[in-house]
Amino acid sequence: MKNLVALVDGSRNIHLETRDVPEPGLNEVLIEIASVGICGSDLKYWAYGKCGRFALDGTQMVIGHEAGGTIVAIGQNIKHLKPGDRVAIEPGVPCKSCEICNNGRYNLCQRMKFCATPPVDGNLCKYYVHDADFCYKIPDSMTTEEAAMLEPLSVAVYACQRGEVSLGNSIVIFGAGPVGILCGLVAKSKGAANICIVDIDSGRLNKALELGAAHTVHCCKPGEDPQKVASDILSTIGSAMGPHCSIECSGADSSLSTGVYITRPGGCVVMVGRGSMTPSVPMVCAATKEVDIFGVFRYANNYPQALALLSSGAIDVKPLITHRFTLNDSEKAFETAADSKQKAIKVMINCQ
Amino acid sequence: MKNLVALVDGSRNIHLETRDVPEPGLNEVLIEIASVGICGSDLKYWAYGKCGRFALDGTQMVIGHEAGGTIVAIGQNIKHLKPGDRVAIEPGVPCKSCEICNNGRYNLCQRMKFCATPPVDGNLCKYYVHDADFCYKIPDSMTTEEAAMLEPLSVAVYACQRGEVSLGNSIVIFGAGPVGILCGLVAKSKGAANICIVDIDSGRLNKALELGAAHTVHCCKPGEDPQKVASDILSTIGSAMGPHCSIECSGADSSLSTGVYITRPGGCVVMVGRGSMTPSVPMVCAATKEVDIFGVFRYANNYPQALALLSSGAIDVKPLITHRFTLNDSEKAFETAADSKQKAIKVMINCQ
Amino acid sequence: MKNLVALVDGSRNIHLETRDVPEPGLNEVLIEIASVGICGSDLKYWAYGKCGRFALDGTQMVIGHEAGGTIVAIGQNIKHLKPGDRVAIEPGVPCKSCEICNNGRYNLCQRMKFCATPPVDGNLCKYYVHDADFCYKIPDSMTTEEAAMLEPLSVAVYACQRGEVSLGNSIVIFGAGPVGILCGLVAKSKGAANICIVDIDSGRLNKALELGAAHTVHCCKPGEDPQKVASDILSTIGSAMGPHCSIECSGADSSLSTGVYITRPGGCVVMVGRGSMTPSVPMVCAATKEVDIFGVFRYANNYPQALALLSSGAIDVKPLITHRFTLNDSEKAFETAADSKQKAIKVMINCQ
Amino acid sequence: MKNLVALVDGSRNIHLETRDVPEPGLNEVLIEIASVGICGSDLKYWAYGKCGRFALDGTQMVIGHEAGGTIVAIGQNIKHLKPGDRVAIEPGVPCKSCEICNNGRYNLCQRMKFCATPPVDGNLCKYYVHDADFCYKIPDSMTTEEAAMLEPLSVAVYACQRGEVSLGNSIVIFGAGPVGILCGLVAKSKGAANICIVDIDSGRLNKALELGAAHTVHCCKPGEDPQKVASDILSTIGSAMGPHCSIECSGADSSLSTGVYITRPGGCVVMVGRGSMTPSVPMVCAATKEVDIFGVFRYANNYPQALALLSSGAIDVKPLITHRFTLNDSEKAFETAADSKQKAIKVMINCQ
Repeated sequence: MKNLVALVDGSRNIHLETRDVPEPGLNEVLIEIASVGICGSDLKYWAYGKCGRFALDGTQMVIGHEAGGTIVAIGQNIKHLKPGDRVAIEPGVPCKSCEICNNGRYNLCQRMKFCATPPVDGNLCKYYVHDADFCYKIPDSMTTEEAAMLEPLSVAVYACQRGEVSLGNSIVIFGAGPVGILCGLVAKSKGAANICIVDIDSGRLNKALELGAAHTVHCCKPGEDPQKVASDILSTIGSAMGPHCSIECSGADSSLSTGVYITRPGGCVVMVGRGSMTPSVPMVCAATKEVDIFGVFRYANNYPQALALLSSGAIDVKPLITHRFTLNDSEKAFETAADSKQKAIKVMINCQ
Repeated sequence: MKNLVALVDGSRNIHLETRDVPEPGLNEVLIEIASVGICGSDLKYWAYGKCGRFALDGTQMVIGHEAGGTIVAIGQNIKHLKPGDRVAIEPGVPCKSCEICNNGRYNLCQRMKFCATPPVDGNLCKYYVHDADFCYKIPDSMTTEEAAMLEPLSVAVYACQRGEVSLGNSIVIFGAGPVGILCGLVAKSKGAANICIVDIDSGRLNKALELGAAHTVHCCKPGEDPQKVASDILSTIGSAMGPHCSIECSGADSSLSTGVYITRPGGCVVMVGRGSMTPSVPMVCAATKEVDIFGVFRYANNYPQALALLSSGAIDVKPLITHRFTLNDSEKAFETAADSKQKAIKVMINCQ
Repeated sequence: MKNLVALVDGSRNIHLETRDVPEPGLNEVLIEIASVGICGSDLKYWAYGKCGRFALDGTQMVIGHEAGGTIVAIGQNIKHLKPGDRVAIEPGVPCKSCEICNNGRYNLCQRMKFCATPPVDGNLCKYYVHDADFCYKIPDSMTTEEAAMLEPLSVAVYACQRGEVSLGNSIVIFGAGPVGILCGLVAKSKGAANICIVDIDSGRLNKALELGAAHTVHCCKPGEDPQKVASDILSTIGSAMGPHCSIECSGADSSLSTGVYITRPGGCVVMVGRGSMTPSVPMVCAATKEVDIFGVFRYANNYPQALALLSSGAIDVKPLITHRFTLNDSEKAFETAADSKQKAIKVMINCQ
Repeated sequence: MKNLVALVDGSRNIHLETRDVPEPGLNEVLIEIASVGICGSDLKYWAYGKCGRFALDGTQMVIGHEAGGTIVAIGQNIKHLKPGDRVAIEPGVPCKSCEICNNGRYNLCQRMKFCATPPVDGNLCKYYVHDADFCYKIPDSMTTEEAAMLEPLSVAVYACQRGEVSLGNSIVIFGAGPVGILCGLVAKSKGAANICIVDIDSGRLNKALELGAAHTVHCCKPGEDPQKVASDILSTIGSAMGPHCSIECSGADSSLSTGVYITRPGGCVVMVGRGSMTPSVPMVCAATKEVDIFGVFRYANNYPQALALLSSGAIDVKPLITHRFTLNDSEKAFETAADSKQKAIKVMINCQ
């Protein structure tokens, strides 16, 4: 039995390599990976060898961090999982020792090991070993593709948690990519009464509507003045007061500003996307209206919630999967995901 | 133009009386009442002349506090409402002056004037004057019966807010009366993934299931030991850990105890129903598991949320209305609501 | 009996005018003003005729909003106050009717009337009428100067509340003016274990230390790079992790950036000062560390707390009052407050 | 080098036994124990062999869980501690794997191993091995007795955290034992403005006042009616509204009831003490006033705060240590702690 792993080096290539199958440690499980989704950060390592403050620095790294599979072996201490269990893999394993971990915000752990974040290898491969505490058994009714989708869904669950999205709220989401759409679906499942998604691409907006991620959509032009866009959005949603929460998932600096302008006094802006390092932000406006600005860095304790949402049928993520490839065709998968003409929402790789 | 009001005195009679139509003050509106729901507290004043610490003490009082209608006149200062607007009436008007009101928990205001809570008259009548700040315009798509239903729905919204019901939560509700059912519907609309309603009446439980207020139901026998019931419920919901939140809507002391026993460590019990004044409660269990116990007294700031839930179609309360009467037949309405054989969920009175 | 009021018009003059003594409305009290402190916003109206988004636009306005005095007459509805009572005046009176007021965040009320915020007159005068709900009786042990100091103290109490300053926290405060110093005193009274004040003026820093507002101080140069300042502050406080909360009271854009850089993951930055409208802010850093950014707009429900702090002796604000003038000498008072060479912390005007 | 351990078996004896010195595991440290405080739960195991739901069941157990000492050896993975470091020992080590631990409420971990809670041995001994994550280095200025005191101090810090004790609050504490006194000191260090301690023993109350743990005290008679005591306390504190928070540290059922009666609407009661399993509690009163009832089970994430409080000098716990014994005299130490005539607050055992 041999392993096959998909490596990136920043040159827009996927290098497939045969390796030994790893063995699980005492608190680990060995997983036969079934499905791996491709995310924007994966594309950045593939294309540029870096993402935010992390860089490959000339080394190769196994890519992939949105994965589901089947357990084939377990470490000596493992009691809650057994071979044959199908699991969703939460890709980050914190140190479990520091003050931050003890406090429950383990996503901020400074010693976090996160799949496909250099120098930690990801799980776009055939066999993969992971800490059993961060593997979640999925029910028979759920596919391993859905298990892989729990990763971006957890981002959306966490974003809506940070934004305190609640019953009857009005929400504006910037960016109709997979995470924006998932934020819309999660906000709806929390009882938000008025969800508007904003993007510059009307095709993506229509898709968001079709998927039930929004009640209304707003298409804006690139480069438009944030205050003008703000005023247009308020017209679209028919609310002089503005939304309780704006969720920025586009990575556009101007959307962050627009978010501050539209949000009602006492509301909040949640930063899921990443724009430039030090953008201009209307901080006097934010301060005067007490519009709080919250960051989102991955998620913490949200896999169980995301799993419950899919199990109960509250959210259906399957329609977001628009393209499928095999592990051997990973390079095509990445090219498709990176090509806006393909209009991919989520590209999924089947590893078996 | 004359007014007609429905009075109770604790003798199980409804006395209809003709009065002058009141005039709205500067910050008030005059409402032609269309629909009034009957609630458990109304029945208590009608049957016994008292409810909890409030008593009629031999006087008569206009009954009714779940009402919707149409504005026919407005006070001089009113700008956000006009004659012809149909409104839901939030029945409690706080003092707006004390520290508690300033802090936003106006339901706890010691100078609250609440419809049909002695000595304040209610709104089961043809014409009624109310503080305009506590009248909410309803959209064309909503009926005045739904406006009346906003009152018990607000109780449920507030109960789920106090219980911090959230995405993917497991919830157990005691009591399948109107408030228990509404709590189930609200919990579902907040993304609770596993909602179980418990009652001693299997008919009510089936109705709750049919209305979509629960994923599972549990029927228990009167007088059963709370720890036994607790163990049975945990089997029913298939969770060794227990629910995140238990919502007590039955008024049975034993259910409060059961709620403490089943709730998971770090969860909470919400008291919506009222049992005996000083019941025995497993407080060492509550303390050791840190199961917090929260009270619910009416609601505060929840009408806008309840209104949004109905407007957006997230919740449909119309199937809960099982019986309808005219104002002249109010006595029959009360008798029907009080008669368990009638299997009424919500009895509604049409006042025009 | 005549009133005397101090008017500003943006020309750096104080114009004293004799007016009729106003009469209290039903829910109001007439106050003989004793002490009025001068604040930075007062100086802006005096010198430039505007402050933030508010402007005099050529009109005159009575200045002053930090005031204490003695009640001389009361409106018909007033029961909790009587002539002879000495009171602190909370200068903002919200509408008490809107959703925001009902929710308890009345400082964000869009119909707020706030002393000396155009077009609302302030209370630097002999006689002044105010809503009785926003007058707080002070104990015999407290002076009217302390009553006036409750206003900036409430800002500090609210800033520390928004920043969730708690037991054992490490706090960095930017700006050693009156509000920065008061934030330090309040943070200490909440059990913060390590408070560092940062300023460009070592004299002000020494004063802050002397007043007990800080455990350590850090002097930085104007124009220094925020990341350099950040690194220096971390050395000063001897914490690699950084403070739990940074409170920006200087109004310098660079301090806001520095605050983001130094604050520990999961901490927060509180904006009390106001810098330029759309500064550059390290938002990717804030988002990645989940350093939340909170605005402070005045305060809500904090006068009772501020009053308790002074009554109990937990905080002594008297040493902050460095200069005193009479109402007739108001112009000198403003000139002194505006002249950095005078090294005033709080300039107080005696109105009787 | 030999170890010496102090065993209890429920017969009011301390059995000293010589054992091998244990060796630290990879993530552990070996500590030369210096100081161990005696707590009420220690006394229960010593006298009765059980405490709450935990029982010795005829076995012997090393007693002691409030300890400080000096590290003499470290496991291979330990980097933040070294031999010679003096540490406070947080006695509970959670599993670090379950959902509850991941969420940060590790005190509720169902697999917690807690010193001197059967079947886990305590640390009243010469040498003791502990998980390094739960050892906190103390500064040179702090004694190992103070390190031992961090344990009950953490209970008080956590109780005040759960009770949301805040600036200017009015607090009533039931029980003037060590934990009640520490709650008073912590509440004061958080800025509570009015702290009243209630007990049946005027000597203990005077001591509490002397130690600065209260602003006022109230002595009540055993067996008095809770509503009568409530009314008397409200007179003592001079507040018709009642305290924001009541902290029950006495273990008397009646005090829990009194706490509910006196607490203001919207306030809370914190259960630190443990009374009978299912006491009668005025739940309708609690529900109607929305007085929330919170349990305290040990503490989570509070050692760093407690350590900061002692380091900064905000709290001085040394005067609470009234009696000292050597390890060889442990039996006398327990007898003294158990004998109310000795008026011990904290009995400390020196182990070297």
